[in-house]
Amino acid sequence: MNPDIIQQARNNTPLIHHLTNQVVMNFNANGLLAFGGSPVMAKEIREATDMAKASDALVLNIGTILESEADAMITAGKAANEKGIPVVLDPVGVAASSFRKDMVEKILQEVRPTVIKGNAGEIASLVDANIQSRGVDSVGEGNVDEIAEQAGRKYDTAIVITGKTDVIHADQKLIYNQTGHPLLSNITGSGCLLGSIAAACLTTSYTVSEQLSSALSFYGLAAEHAAKLPHVHGPGTFLPSFIDALSFTPKQLNGGLEDDF
Amino acid sequence: MNPDIIQQARNNTPLIHHLTNQVVMNFNANGLLAFGGSPVMAKEIREATDMAKASDALVLNIGTILESEADAMITAGKAANEKGIPVVLDPVGVAASSFRKDMVEKILQEVRPTVIKGNAGEIASLVDANIQSRGVDSVGEGNVDEIAEQAGRKYDTAIVITGKTDVIHADQKLIYNQTGHPLLSNITGSGCLLGSIAAACLTTSYTVSEQLSSALSFYGLAAEHAAKLPHVHGPGTFLPSFIDALSFTPKQLNGGLEDDF
Amino acid sequence: MNPDIIQQARNNTPLIHHLTNQVVMNFNANGLLAFGGSPVMAKEIREATDMAKASDALVLNIGTILESEADAMITAGKAANEKGIPVVLDPVGVAASSFRKDMVEKILQEVRPTVIKGNAGEIASLVDANIQSRGVDSVGEGNVDEIAEQAGRKYDTAIVITGKTDVIHADQKLIYNQTGHPLLSNITGSGCLLGSIAAACLTTSYTVSEQLSSALSFYGLAAEHAAKLPHVHGPGTFLPSFIDALSFTPKQLNGGLEDDF
Repeated sequence: MNPDIIQQARNNTPLIHHLTNQVVMNFNANGLLAFGGSPVMAKEIREATDMAKASDALVLNIGTILESEADAMITAGKAANEKGIPVVLDPVGVAASSFRKDMVEKILQEVRPTVIKGNAGEIASLVDANIQSRGVDSVGEGNVDEIAEQAGRKYDTAIVITGKTDVIHADQKLIYNQTGHPLLSNITGSGCLLGSIAAACLTTSYTVSEQLSSALSFYGLAAEHAAKLPHVHGPGTFLPSFIDALSFTPKQLNGGLEDDF
Repeated sequence: MNPDIIQQARNNTPLIHHLTNQVVMNFNANGLLAFGGSPVMAKEIREATDMAKASDALVLNIGTILESEADAMITAGKAANEKGIPVVLDPVGVAASSFRKDMVEKILQEVRPTVIKGNAGEIASLVDANIQSRGVDSVGEGNVDEIAEQAGRKYDTAIVITGKTDVIHADQKLIYNQTGHPLLSNITGSGCLLGSIAAACLTTSYTVSEQLSSALSFYGLAAEHAAKLPHVHGPGTFLPSFIDALSFTPKQLNGGLEDDF
Repeated sequence: MNPDIIQQARNNTPLIHHLTNQVVMNFNANGLLAFGGSPVMAKEIREATDMAKASDALVLNIGTILESEADAMITAGKAANEKGIPVVLDPVGVAASSFRKDMVEKILQEVRPTVIKGNAGEIASLVDANIQSRGVDSVGEGNVDEIAEQAGRKYDTAIVITGKTDVIHADQKLIYNQTGHPLLSNITGSGCLLGSIAAACLTTSYTVSEQLSSALSFYGLAAEHAAKLPHVHGPGTFLPSFIDALSFTPKQLNGGLEDDF
């Protein structure tokens, strides 16, 4: 991780427009606020362009997408592309229904994302590779490296595949991230919030591969830090401390609260 | 409570499709994840059948229902009935407006629930009995046993009426549950989440009356456990510890953290 | 603060109907429940009148408003005006898009709010004054007193402008509130929830200026109380304790947990 990326992202207090799913909005907004970004969440097509134009990055997340929302996503995405700000696409549960696949394809025909972020089953579904999904979770195994490269080539974009080991394909190379904690998969929206933290880091002046690997590394360290706290006994008590940890410096996450506060 | 039902429900990690209200989605998903289930939440009619077909149970909750959402609920419900998976219907606030009553009747004409779960005012409203409601809460008194039996006969389904004493009518008998804690009524969605935990237990190989009474007993014990913790000073600090408790074993909830961790 | 207003609001357990934004619903409902109110949240136009008629106050919050939702807000608002119950309007992010400005103007043409509550940028936008906004946040400076008076005159309503110092314009006078804590601006929806607490206090038998200043003072004290607790290390751990604090008495918030529990 490059701590300067985290610091620069915070200095930007980037305004990040979200068209995202209803399940995670509150958690996602609080997590991004804690990190140092500024969330805006809105789905009305009539303001999609205004919002994207005022923003520093855009997150499109199809977790609870309605057919009527796809056009607002496309309008916001095109405005973001025109302005040249980063666009993160999270194809949540794309393998779970043909409808979601249609929606993602429709979006990708008109919007060029900076990065597509998903679990193995979701990204595999984008390139018709065969990794089993179950609802919004990935449960099968497969050659994740190859899938990341394929998806990156197909959509000419960076790819993040989250999992026990996260795989990043960006700037023509593969990067792996090993930070993280199993409790992350026990709270809903941990992948979605990662998309927002990545978007914040993408507003800095570094290469995409550096930005994404720093975002993922930081995010996983925050989870590790929170999970170790003595009052954390499960996913419920993990969540508030994880949000806290997203507001800490990389040094604080490494050294622990005692050393640095 | 039969601890084997809780254990079997967890072994299933049941995928539970929710068409539920916007207020509780995040809490509900986190609670079900903690318990050991796998939530999916989506309201687009075009994927309602795909989602129901991939799922192990379905929860229909009308807490913030829009007229445009009723058809997706019916489509999902019919697909669930065809597949033979459990359907939990939660008629939140049905006594609060004639619109909600219309919606519930419309759903019940086409979908056969495994259980209808609500507070006394809500279930009373389904059989035109007279228990006072206020918004989404039940405030009056009445013969709850009789109402449970009437509603069960009318809709040929199991009934759960939540309250200080919960009443279950299933398998031609009445069962009472006394576990629980007043703090549950100070957090929004505690009834909604109970519907998801019940749905998870309904995926096991026991009778409906055993499944429902174990779900309710476990849920109440988790609340009692959390409420007793020394750092819990109100509904805000209760909530994270309650989510934790939903991930514990029945034995842990009985004996307390000290004995069993 | 007048503690009797807080006490009377709680004795009323006011049923407060919300047409509010998707990001904050859960937090907002939990905060109002903790305080002692009873939240109902629904956006279907067909039940807007029923709900408003059953309620003791109405909150209209445009944070994630869709064009299709404006009519339900107007229907609910008109029913509330007819019944004579307090209406709180929160024009979240009104300066962020011309669409939002249209929506607020449309609502204000048909609904008469008891109070309009927003940050400086939002209220400035209503009177075409010039305070810079960024997304849903106010970032510029300006003559806030004057803006409060102008907006109050223009819409014949009380005005609350939140900020480091809150400004209330009601009953032909300006009142200032200094309670509060910076952590409030690091959790999403803290302004929205304040609208609900204000609505609860507006159901008491005091003047609007007394009701609003007591609501704001109490809310800020609750934040100060929570922020001082030894286990609060950031916005994540602040939130549950803040919800707890909303359930405390003014005396408890002043004296601290040790003295009063």
